[in-house]
Amino acid sequence: MATLIDGLLETHLTNYLPQNLQKNVDRPFVTLTYAQSLDSRIAAQPGERTAISHQETKTMTHYLRSKHDAILVGVGTVLADDPKLNCRYKKAFSFQSKASTIKPVIIDPKAKWKYLNSQLHQLVKSGEAEAPYIVIDQNTTLSDEETNCLKACGGNYIVLPLLGKSNVDQWNLILKALKDLDIKSVMIEGGARVINDLLKIQAREYKIIDSLVITIGPVFLGKDGVEVSPVSSLDLRFVRWWSGGRDSVLAALPN
Amino acid sequence: MATLIDGLLETHLTNYLPQNLQKNVDRPFVTLTYAQSLDSRIAAQPGERTAISHQETKTMTHYLRSKHDAILVGVGTVLADDPKLNCRYKKAFSFQSKASTIKPVIIDPKAKWKYLNSQLHQLVKSGEAEAPYIVIDQNTTLSDEETNCLKACGGNYIVLPLLGKSNVDQWNLILKALKDLDIKSVMIEGGARVINDLLKIQAREYKIIDSLVITIGPVFLGKDGVEVSPVSSLDLRFVRWWSGGRDSVLAALPN
Repeated sequence: MATLIDGLLETHLTNYLPQNLQKNVDRPFVTLTYAQSLDSRIAAQPGERTAISHQETKTMTHYLRSKHDAILVGVGTVLADDPKLNCRYKKAFSFQSKASTIKPVIIDPKAKWKYLNSQLHQLVKSGEAEAPYIVIDQNTTLSDEETNCLKACGGNYIVLPLLGKSNVDQWNLILKALKDLDIKSVMIEGGARVINDLLKIQAREYKIIDSLVITIGPVFLGKDGVEVSPVSSLDLRFVRWWSGGRDSVLAALPN
Repeated sequence: MATLIDGLLETHLTNYLPQNLQKNVDRPFVTLTYAQSLDSRIAAQPGERTAISHQETKTMTHYLRSKHDAILVGVGTVLADDPKLNCRYKKAFSFQSKASTIKPVIIDPKAKWKYLNSQLHQLVKSGEAEAPYIVIDQNTTLSDEETNCLKACGGNYIVLPLLGKSNVDQWNLILKALKDLDIKSVMIEGGARVINDLLKIQAREYKIIDSLVITIGPVFLGKDGVEVSPVSSLDLRFVRWWSGGRDSVLAALPN
């Protein structure tokens, strides 16, 4: 069963992976990926963690993570979900004794998230995750305790002049900084603010997303849910759908 | 190719069709079906006709129509789209010389739509569609010209005490009236007002939808689009996805 899944994932996703698509010179390859309901909600309420995808598509997420250098999320996601941000995909019957590693990147301009108390910190201590890069604004004050803990674990801050800048300029700065840190591919997983920003930028014809993988769960979350939708329309090309039983998955390249 | 499509449609949809599911005693079997973007918009702007689904899923729509007694839409849809509301599905290599017929039902409480000038009227005259039932409120005044034209074609008005009633009561009245006219199954295709009303009622646990078929096109229509989403969450069961190339199709039964 595991090898079948490996093969299926290869078949469906190979044409959407960073290693098989053209490289960018000035920024990492960007894959945007998230799970949504039929009514394009990624959570039932703001700040609430909502399980939308099922086991088979969760496996896909970790497969995708294994193909990227970094995983990026916004501060809303770490505050709401306290996520693991590691890669738990192991190729069946391979000689890999451990899962692949992936570098977490957290966009947290005002340093609201506490790494020290996070699940990620626990996983880093037990060798199950990498210490993150935390992207902060240059005017943000950091506590010594947080800074020491992060750096002792092997993480660091990426300090940038973010506040007051346009979305496009902020993302260009962030992606350029990641490229300078030798991150060649980044999988951006949320939350709504980050997804909507990227879709908006892409719809306005600034090319920022290289590949898009969306899981759709067979549920309506309703009007109070957290919506993802760009400001204007956005066409996709090179579309491939596949179904993992409960969910449908779209892989595509933005126009 | 045509027989392959017939077979595929049978395979995917047979468990969601009125003839294969339990009958309702007091109302027709209700299939809700529509095409949406990834961000759950059914049109790019209010009152604008937006092509979302592709040829293969359009064929599915006509296959579905061939399995129902009636097709129902709201007044917004006839005003925006001037739709054909007929069934253009013919089984390949069968002895059927004509496509199946389907009875159009238009919910138009204040009689804003003009049948006389519609594309549907042209199709009725050439024998390519059936004359509609138009559901109006009991206090609505009708023009003699419209009334005579509709009735001469074989259509009629369904006059009900709609205005001032709750959504649930309105829909119960409409469905009961259709059942009394010997309509055993109805395919409800839109627009947004009708879809949102039905999803809202269903999410509030009044059982009104028996089967759900949603086509998802690989496009974002953006914030200004016409959204479909229930007021609260709604789970689905007996989920089946299939992909028609560009689109993904969900067939499911509401919880």
